[in-house]
Amino acid sequence: MTASVKAFVFDVYGTLFDVYSVKEKADELYNGKGYEISMLWRQKQLEYSFLRQLMGKYDTFSNITRDSLRYTLYYLNIQSDSEKEQLLIDAYKHLSLFPEVKDVLTQLKHKKLAVFSNGSRDMLDPLIEYSSLRQLFDKIISVDDIKQYKPTPASYGHALHTLGLEREEILFMSSNGWDISGARNFGFKTAWINRKKLPLEELDVNPHHIYSDLSHILEWVN
Amino acid sequence: MTASVKAFVFDVYGTLFDVYSVKEKADELYNGKGYEISMLWRQKQLEYSFLRQLMGKYDTFSNITRDSLRYTLYYLNIQSDSEKEQLLIDAYKHLSLFPEVKDVLTQLKHKKLAVFSNGSRDMLDPLIEYSSLRQLFDKIISVDDIKQYKPTPASYGHALHTLGLEREEILFMSSNGWDISGARNFGFKTAWINRKKLPLEELDVNPHHIYSDLSHILEWVN
Repeated sequence: MTASVKAFVFDVYGTLFDVYSVKEKADELYNGKGYEISMLWRQKQLEYSFLRQLMGKYDTFSNITRDSLRYTLYYLNIQSDSEKEQLLIDAYKHLSLFPEVKDVLTQLKHKKLAVFSNGSRDMLDPLIEYSSLRQLFDKIISVDDIKQYKPTPASYGHALHTLGLEREEILFMSSNGWDISGARNFGFKTAWINRKKLPLEELDVNPHHIYSDLSHILEWVN
Repeated sequence: MTASVKAFVFDVYGTLFDVYSVKEKADELYNGKGYEISMLWRQKQLEYSFLRQLMGKYDTFSNITRDSLRYTLYYLNIQSDSEKEQLLIDAYKHLSLFPEVKDVLTQLKHKKLAVFSNGSRDMLDPLIEYSSLRQLFDKIISVDDIKQYKPTPASYGHALHTLGLEREEILFMSSNGWDISGARNFGFKTAWINRKKLPLEELDVNPHHIYSDLSHILEWVN
């Protein structure tokens, strides 16, 4: 598979970093409601990025992350204030890496590596810095530079142009089924990192490969 | 408010008809799993319409409804077959009207009334026929005619052109917060029929009016 692969490109939220690792902080701030908050927050964050793209009303992922948290707290009928909300937003800049990520990236460091995320730079850069992975990546690519969210073809086109490669020379890895559908629809090689053993999305574009975590990528490279 | 309103336009799924009324049939077919099925099915149905629009990979709402049901059954680990699935799909053509709908529409019948839906005609027409409301509507408008889902501006533009009015002459009513955001973003007058007492969507476009059901529209007309 990887003979012709010239860049290994990783989605960030849910793929390298566990977005549900905010649960602990949310538990602490809101009396054990961390699970409900983290689940709904993520769902609304994605929904708002999709809806704003559809409406032609782009806003940064950091603003969307704040707005979706606010909706979540209203929905769950949880009393809050802007100070608490800021603490949770800050937790999004200190997400946990999935256990295998550092080792896999280190083993791949002789390859061209990049991240490609819906996250805006004000949340993406601090997160990557915090993880101490920065020096492993050739490029940190954010859709915010062209204000077109994944899974639009324009967003994957931005990654393609930034990398200066052909579509099929890019192996794109994401744990988000919709992101993999969008990437394959655009023409990337795709590996769905199906961490939660979810069913395939029924969108008529299936991943080339499905793995339970990122370590399986190494089988193709070494 | 309604002095300048020249058309009363209604969303269909969730607004006139209760999409969760498939619960009963699903309970019967799948041993009491109707609640989980109906909730996730609706969520994935919307998600797939958004994702296909974003990817530029339009498919009809009836196909999306089938695909999202299939995902739902896999996700919930429910054994099924195509015959049972077809029975549930058929239930989508026999949804229950919300209690006040028939009376409200009858009282408004001297006005120009229309429905405007993401539903394709193969599911929309049988549903409207089944409800015996067909003769009350001047127009049955489906996004399928231009293959652009709500909440894209193009979709609301299609309703506008079909009605031959100015944007602000249209009062659009939906129970779906994202649909109201899209309609107001486009320039319609909007009334959010907030049947479930949900929080406002945090999308920077709030409805002009919020009502608990459609009967409150009559206060403005009579």
